Amino acid sequence: MTVIEIRIELKKGVADPEGKNTRKTLESLGFEGIADVRSVKLFEVELDMPADDALKAGEEMCRKLLANPVIQNYRVTVR
Amino acid sequence: MTVIEIRIELKKGVADPEGKNTRKTLESLGFEGIADVRSVKLFEVELDMPADDALKAGEEMCRKLLANPVIQNYRVTVR
Repeated sequence: MTVIEIRIELKKGVADPEGKNTRKTLESLGFEGIADVRSVKLFEVELDMPADDALKAGEEMCRKLLANPVIQNYRVTVR
Repeated sequence: MTVIEIRIELKKGVADPEGKNTRKTLESLGFEGIADVRSVKLFEVELDMPADDALKAGEEMCRKLLANPVIQNYRVTVR
C-alpha cells in the first residue's frame, strides 16, 4: 500500500480568487503583514501498488482528470 | 518574509464527498488499486514576519476563519 500526495496549484500569473478573498477576509479580521495567500488543492490517494507504480498512476490521474494543464501545475510525491 | 503552509483536512469518520466522487471518476476512467482518495485544502500564506510569529498567526487564522474544528483538523508548518 502506498499513499501518494497529489498537489495541484495555479500557475504563476493565473488569478486565484479563493486566495485573494481569503486574504481580504483575514485582513478584515485584523491579521497584518500578509503578503500573499495562495490556494492549493491536495489529494491523498491510497493505492494498492508499490511506490514507483503509484507515482506513475498519480501523474496519469493528473493528466487525465485532476489537473488543468492550461492553468495548473501538479506534483506527485510519495508520503 | 516567511511562507507558511496551512493544511486543512477532514477528521477521521467525516464524509468526504469530493474524495469519494474523485475516486469513482478515477475508477470509471480505468484506474485500479485505489483504496482511498482524500481531499485536502491547503493555503500558502506569505507573511512579513519571522517564522515563529508566522506560525502563531497561521494557527490563529485557522481558529478564526479557515478551519471548522467540528469536522476538520489543521496543521501549520513553515515552508
